[in-house]
Amino acid sequence: MRLDVIPSVNEARSDDLIHKTVIVIDVLRATSTIVTALAAGCAGIIPVETVIQAKNLREEGELLGGERYCKKITGFDLGNSPLEYRDHGLQGEKIIMTTTNGTRAMQKVQKASHVLLGSLLNARSCARVAWELKRDVVLVCAGTQDQFSLEDGLCAGCIVDCIYSFAEEQPEVNDFGLAMRHAYLHAGTDMQNAILSCANGKKLCRLGFEEDVLFCCNFNQFDVVPVLQDHILVKL
Amino acid sequence: MRLDVIPSVNEARSDDLIHKTVIVIDVLRATSTIVTALAAGCAGIIPVETVIQAKNLREEGELLGGERYCKKITGFDLGNSPLEYRDHGLQGEKIIMTTTNGTRAMQKVQKASHVLLGSLLNARSCARVAWELKRDVVLVCAGTQDQFSLEDGLCAGCIVDCIYSFAEEQPEVNDFGLAMRHAYLHAGTDMQNAILSCANGKKLCRLGFEEDVLFCCNFNQFDVVPVLQDHILVKL
Repeated sequence: MRLDVIPSVNEARSDDLIHKTVIVIDVLRATSTIVTALAAGCAGIIPVETVIQAKNLREEGELLGGERYCKKITGFDLGNSPLEYRDHGLQGEKIIMTTTNGTRAMQKVQKASHVLLGSLLNARSCARVAWELKRDVVLVCAGTQDQFSLEDGLCAGCIVDCIYSFAEEQPEVNDFGLAMRHAYLHAGTDMQNAILSCANGKKLCRLGFEEDVLFCCNFNQFDVVPVLQDHILVKL
Repeated sequence: MRLDVIPSVNEARSDDLIHKTVIVIDVLRATSTIVTALAAGCAGIIPVETVIQAKNLREEGELLGGERYCKKITGFDLGNSPLEYRDHGLQGEKIIMTTTNGTRAMQKVQKASHVLLGSLLNARSCARVAWELKRDVVLVCAGTQDQFSLEDGLCAGCIVDCIYSFAEEQPEVNDFGLAMRHAYLHAGTDMQNAILSCANGKKLCRLGFEEDVLFCCNFNQFDVVPVLQDHILVKL
């Protein structure tokens, strides 16, 4: 099995994903939020790139969620806070969602055989599913505006490390993946502090989302693995 | 002070380097080789991009060094092995050198105020000089064919960590630099093993250069810091 970690979404080439399992990672906050929403009973989430697409696609009874500049979009029902989705009462609801980086990454990887979402909240379960699919895995860090984000890299390192623990034979890992595994093995002992000191962690704290940041640092809170099926993210 | 680590040479934008100190890192093997050559008494090294440039520039008494596909270029005096440069008897010699990634990186960063070369062999001294220059620092990992290479990232993390140890006030570091520091703090306790398992380490071992790889893993063997002055790399 081969594992490749890609530092940010613009470095993922669609054609390199064919026949592979892709794990999209956007720890702060899109994939953490979607994992939390599905764990809270949400029926499915449709990721789209633009606000207009979200509005045009909406059918009766569906909710709109997402952010621009980290804040809830005007007229939307929900923002991009995992705690908000946890506490909103989403049992059976369907949400159309657009975020700056995460949902864009999900759009870009649709040529893969399987698209899973990873976060620290479901790292081990996500690694387990990817491992059981027995295909090469590409972990796509969403990043921020085409730049690498530490929290996504550490999560990728965590998932790579989980897959090492399942595999009898050591997987082949690209150099960036090896670096992220080393980084996770150092930073993972105090993940909150590591993520509070990176660019997105600091920005979200400044904007009043410190509780979200701390929540997103919790390892393996959920065994939910979101998977993209016919353009809808559902619980596997 | 701000520290930015750039994953590979094609991601360095020349204009972002103006007024800054740049440290070029190509652990396997260009910067390790040049540090070793200067430590062995070599008078100066002129880095050029192409084999033709090297041949055209050569004046009487100068040596030609470099590699393509990791091997010595036909008709050149030296390859790109630090051990070869250490043992060749280079006292007072001037060398024109071209390598696939390292010397290209050196060409690309010439708009910086200062260009230093870093490797594990001179990491602490290099960090000390950069720190004393009191400018923002950009650490450019040369990488391999525009891809990130683990050994360069770990060296960058090591230099970032050294600068942390000098600074009273914590420097501002980009997310990629934070990740490399974490990775170094994990992998640095067994650097040989980390570098033997990355792509370039494995490739060089296959080609018979294992001794070079192991030599390049030695921390702080030399206090030599190569600096680019009028297109020539000399000992600071």
